[in-house]
Amino acid sequence: MATAADNKARIGVLGASGYTGAELVRLLLRHPEVAIVLLTADRRAGQEMRQVFPQFAPFDLPVLQSIEGMDWVGAGVDLIFCALPHATTQKVVRQIFGALPAAKVVDLSADFRLADTAAYARWYGHEHHAPELQRQAIYGLVEIYREQIKHAHLVANPGCYTTCAELPLIPLIRAKAIDPDEIVIDAKSGMTGAGRSAKEEMLFSEVSEGFNAYGVGHHRHMAELDQEFSKAAGREVVVSFTPHLVPMNRGILSTIYVRGLKRSPEDLQAILSEAYAKEPFVHVLPFGAVPQTRHVRGSNMTFIGVAKDRVSGRAIICSVLDNLTKGASGQAVQNMNLMLGFPETMGLEQVALFP
Amino acid sequence: MATAADNKARIGVLGASGYTGAELVRLLLRHPEVAIVLLTADRRAGQEMRQVFPQFAPFDLPVLQSIEGMDWVGAGVDLIFCALPHATTQKVVRQIFGALPAAKVVDLSADFRLADTAAYARWYGHEHHAPELQRQAIYGLVEIYREQIKHAHLVANPGCYTTCAELPLIPLIRAKAIDPDEIVIDAKSGMTGAGRSAKEEMLFSEVSEGFNAYGVGHHRHMAELDQEFSKAAGREVVVSFTPHLVPMNRGILSTIYVRGLKRSPEDLQAILSEAYAKEPFVHVLPFGAVPQTRHVRGSNMTFIGVAKDRVSGRAIICSVLDNLTKGASGQAVQNMNLMLGFPETMGLEQVALFP
Amino acid sequence: MATAADNKARIGVLGASGYTGAELVRLLLRHPEVAIVLLTADRRAGQEMRQVFPQFAPFDLPVLQSIEGMDWVGAGVDLIFCALPHATTQKVVRQIFGALPAAKVVDLSADFRLADTAAYARWYGHEHHAPELQRQAIYGLVEIYREQIKHAHLVANPGCYTTCAELPLIPLIRAKAIDPDEIVIDAKSGMTGAGRSAKEEMLFSEVSEGFNAYGVGHHRHMAELDQEFSKAAGREVVVSFTPHLVPMNRGILSTIYVRGLKRSPEDLQAILSEAYAKEPFVHVLPFGAVPQTRHVRGSNMTFIGVAKDRVSGRAIICSVLDNLTKGASGQAVQNMNLMLGFPETMGLEQVALFP
Amino acid sequence: MATAADNKARIGVLGASGYTGAELVRLLLRHPEVAIVLLTADRRAGQEMRQVFPQFAPFDLPVLQSIEGMDWVGAGVDLIFCALPHATTQKVVRQIFGALPAAKVVDLSADFRLADTAAYARWYGHEHHAPELQRQAIYGLVEIYREQIKHAHLVANPGCYTTCAELPLIPLIRAKAIDPDEIVIDAKSGMTGAGRSAKEEMLFSEVSEGFNAYGVGHHRHMAELDQEFSKAAGREVVVSFTPHLVPMNRGILSTIYVRGLKRSPEDLQAILSEAYAKEPFVHVLPFGAVPQTRHVRGSNMTFIGVAKDRVSGRAIICSVLDNLTKGASGQAVQNMNLMLGFPETMGLEQVALFP
Repeated sequence: MATAADNKARIGVLGASGYTGAELVRLLLRHPEVAIVLLTADRRAGQEMRQVFPQFAPFDLPVLQSIEGMDWVGAGVDLIFCALPHATTQKVVRQIFGALPAAKVVDLSADFRLADTAAYARWYGHEHHAPELQRQAIYGLVEIYREQIKHAHLVANPGCYTTCAELPLIPLIRAKAIDPDEIVIDAKSGMTGAGRSAKEEMLFSEVSEGFNAYGVGHHRHMAELDQEFSKAAGREVVVSFTPHLVPMNRGILSTIYVRGLKRSPEDLQAILSEAYAKEPFVHVLPFGAVPQTRHVRGSNMTFIGVAKDRVSGRAIICSVLDNLTKGASGQAVQNMNLMLGFPETMGLEQVALFP
Repeated sequence: MATAADNKARIGVLGASGYTGAELVRLLLRHPEVAIVLLTADRRAGQEMRQVFPQFAPFDLPVLQSIEGMDWVGAGVDLIFCALPHATTQKVVRQIFGALPAAKVVDLSADFRLADTAAYARWYGHEHHAPELQRQAIYGLVEIYREQIKHAHLVANPGCYTTCAELPLIPLIRAKAIDPDEIVIDAKSGMTGAGRSAKEEMLFSEVSEGFNAYGVGHHRHMAELDQEFSKAAGREVVVSFTPHLVPMNRGILSTIYVRGLKRSPEDLQAILSEAYAKEPFVHVLPFGAVPQTRHVRGSNMTFIGVAKDRVSGRAIICSVLDNLTKGASGQAVQNMNLMLGFPETMGLEQVALFP
Repeated sequence: MATAADNKARIGVLGASGYTGAELVRLLLRHPEVAIVLLTADRRAGQEMRQVFPQFAPFDLPVLQSIEGMDWVGAGVDLIFCALPHATTQKVVRQIFGALPAAKVVDLSADFRLADTAAYARWYGHEHHAPELQRQAIYGLVEIYREQIKHAHLVANPGCYTTCAELPLIPLIRAKAIDPDEIVIDAKSGMTGAGRSAKEEMLFSEVSEGFNAYGVGHHRHMAELDQEFSKAAGREVVVSFTPHLVPMNRGILSTIYVRGLKRSPEDLQAILSEAYAKEPFVHVLPFGAVPQTRHVRGSNMTFIGVAKDRVSGRAIICSVLDNLTKGASGQAVQNMNLMLGFPETMGLEQVALFP
Repeated sequence: MATAADNKARIGVLGASGYTGAELVRLLLRHPEVAIVLLTADRRAGQEMRQVFPQFAPFDLPVLQSIEGMDWVGAGVDLIFCALPHATTQKVVRQIFGALPAAKVVDLSADFRLADTAAYARWYGHEHHAPELQRQAIYGLVEIYREQIKHAHLVANPGCYTTCAELPLIPLIRAKAIDPDEIVIDAKSGMTGAGRSAKEEMLFSEVSEGFNAYGVGHHRHMAELDQEFSKAAGREVVVSFTPHLVPMNRGILSTIYVRGLKRSPEDLQAILSEAYAKEPFVHVLPFGAVPQTRHVRGSNMTFIGVAKDRVSGRAIICSVLDNLTKGASGQAVQNMNLMLGFPETMGLEQVALFP
């Protein structure tokens, strides 16, 4: 099963040994208009992808390379997915554009998500290393920024938690249906969201059969949420957000408590239904129904449900997505499709894998 | 390994084929002052306990009986744990007291938890079948009602979700440190909380690798929470509560959002630390630390952590317990110990099983 | 996302509310040459598929019908997948062929797998209800019976355990490289293999965090294994087979102990490599490598590894597949492709979902 | 909940930051005749045990120390559990006996399990560093070597896989009921058996929802199995053994294929029943019943079941234990009880935690 490259867009994946890298390869292998021509993984350079992820054993894929000393011009890529750790990314993306001004980049790190350089410095503790790129980057939440993405050279793919919370909340804030100062997001994520680095607290026996919150009161995804909610509200908004880890691989569920409703809970559902009526990857459930992460597993779908709280003037919204697909690599491919002029759903049609 | 009955309190467990029944047997088998003399399980009557729960194969236990036509006098029990389904319970407990006026009962169902008969009728859709007993029943949250429990004949063992939320919140409401009208409880429970009945949505393949909310906006535990929080506040309180199911067997974590703080978040931790300083089964973590369900698995402990929210005037409290132990059968044994005059921790000393 | 039916093969799925039914729908929804025009589920008749499997909410699918009184002619189906319980199947398939002599059927039950009517009666305790169909049915192990399947009207889709054991063993038995009387198969399956019926022993809390064998010494898949191994050996073979349940959803791993080797363990790997060199869905690993179920999850792949045992003259073979895909519905679609003249891999190209 | 030390045996645990260390602390905390006076963990030296294992937060325990420069005399321990990595152990145990000739040691590593120094060198690739101690060490499989253990100074606690296979097989080999050259052990272990070191292949997302064999054809536990089976047979025996990893925390199940039976399968069950009739920690199930790992979780029990194979002259034995309890720390405490003259079951009475 070789991947022929004739007439296809030439794609590179930097950081192919991580989970978002593997998810990109899974999706791109079946995309009819692209060919994977470059894979990098610094610590595994020289190895075959099948040694790092045995599920790819039946496929022909490029040998893993190191980014060090990479000949970007020789690589001849049309678009690069950058799934590298924070900070490294800024330097690498600047290098890429230096060598290949016409290339396009979808960055899956958090490095280019904050448009405000001051906010970046405050949250990350240092000045941005590529502020000129930071200013050009388009925030890749497709359903909200579709038109800008089509013309972007650098897309900052949104975070998994943030995608899951922004899709239900932005239309409601824009419609002034809820009080933006009163949003509480209680988010729960599967373990792939924590990445593939070998840490004691991520071992199976530490995680299985247990549940916990983490980053209570301080988590970098807050900056991204604040930015987008403030933009939607037209003024500064600060959100309360608490992430938790679920003993499962994939999936995020956000339970979102909204109050100060200017409209009925049923109306909130109607606003979202209308906002997403034509969207292929957002499905709003009937009022009162609650979505489950398992029903979007491995797909690029987001399911959203709205229910009444027993306290009047409040509502409870649940939204789910697969953190590796719509929450990362699926949305990245959706961005690529827009940037390269392919149909937006191409390569993303797979139905959720349940059970 | 026989259980000798000489001079020991004679104990019955009704509903021994369910999970709370099994947990009672697990604990009582190692309690030095009691003997299990009666086990019932209507659909499994005539079977050995080892057929229903093979972990008890090494132990001598009474054959399972049916409650139908039970000779309560002949059974000669000193105390009965009632782990029967809702509604059945009311009739059975009345029967028991009719036959054995001196017996004591710890009821693990929700039937006697609501002191207000009107509230009961509203939440359950029918009049209570034993209102005179409902009025006598003591709510068995030991850390709050210890003295009354010592003299009780009928104890209504609290629910798992409610125990987990009430232990951190009652002292704070009593201290007027938080606004009782603004409590939001986002609770997550392991699957044993849903019981042992064979339902499609509880199959392994439906539950594993997924996460979801349920009963959004309406869950009977709310009535119990309202009752206890209203009592603590000295006025009517309505709480917002959303339960979720975690793909794990045991454990509840409540993420509790409080606001309208009259005291600093650090003070909330101090109030709880002081309130529970001498309690053997409640442990308050240092400020900012977050508890994990896995660290109380199989034990009767509750761990509580308090952290600052990034929005000022708010705090986030996490509390954890094992829903089958402190959330059900462990607390029931703790109640039994008080009712029979044994040391409160007897038979409950096991350390959490982690990993 | 509607499924247009113009010029496409018209497909029915009987028993769409079970896991193999859902897996068929997942695969068929993305198959470019077919349209799902009929779905049945007796107990859920009248419901939408999204009520039974919410992952299909974004898709237009036929309403679930009952088989009772079905108008097979009106349904106008070209091919029917039959995912019904044992015994029902025989009657329904006879009905279908009575009404639609030109229709084709892929049956996922065990009803037509045994060619020998006497063997059927012995294992199932009664005479076959459609012996004339039993004789016509082709055993749908594609890699072995491809040519016959192309011309078949009724294909008996193999069992999951049997596919996993037959793919590695049939070439070795045919090559007389191992002693067929000495095969020991220790098989481990995920829980979806046990189906979706609500049974106590399949509840999450009964299955999670534990492992066990079942059906030790007697399991109906043995009949199917005996049949195929006997055919390959040219004489009667009796196999030792022990299934186990793993706390996971999908996947089977067979650890196969072979002895009486006429060739080296390395040669066994070479025989298999050669036998499957051109097969799109069977991948033989380098000698000594061991496959993992997670690396074929959701795909139609089988991975096979051969290793040396420390006792000379013996080898250990591990093979893995996804019990719902290659072990059931994926293989069924592969059969359909052959029967309807489509490319064999069509609709089955999805890459394994790991992690 | 302090641990008073008056008149109690003074116990040290070396390597307390690993899983077997934590399991020792869990058991010893509730043992009425011992006090934990020394805990070491080199990389965590200076920390509190609650930082390493938060479940111990409610308990007073010694601060973790480094072994480097340990004042063994000052520590004043009566018995030391050594849960250190391979090789380190040999040097440390020699040091301990040098400083404290009267101390007793239970070693949980593999370092002293092989009595034959040549076998040790062959399997571990170097000469033993403390051969004089290796010769003195008693193999701590209590049910087989109880009398020698009572007088031992150094006990080599058996491995988890080996305990699980030796308990059912040694009585059968001794009785000459099976052919010792034909034993095939297919073993499946929970993940805690792999320890707590941070390795990529042990991350939750690598392990969950999957199953695999490892160490096929070569695993150091084989040396231990060979030794004990050869001793039981009175001649050299070589065993076939294949370990697998189950996505669960605790538990081992060994499926053991025996053949060349000199007695009926029913007789095998009878031999084991009789051999273990008085043993508190080994329970032989009725003929044909199969044990499950979940029913011994957290307990010191071993359950054994014997069933008929469909091939005559063969039988299938399943045995289960908790790898951290009877497979490691529970058995270590059982050894301690014998060495210090306590009742053998003291501190080990906890009933299995299911569900």
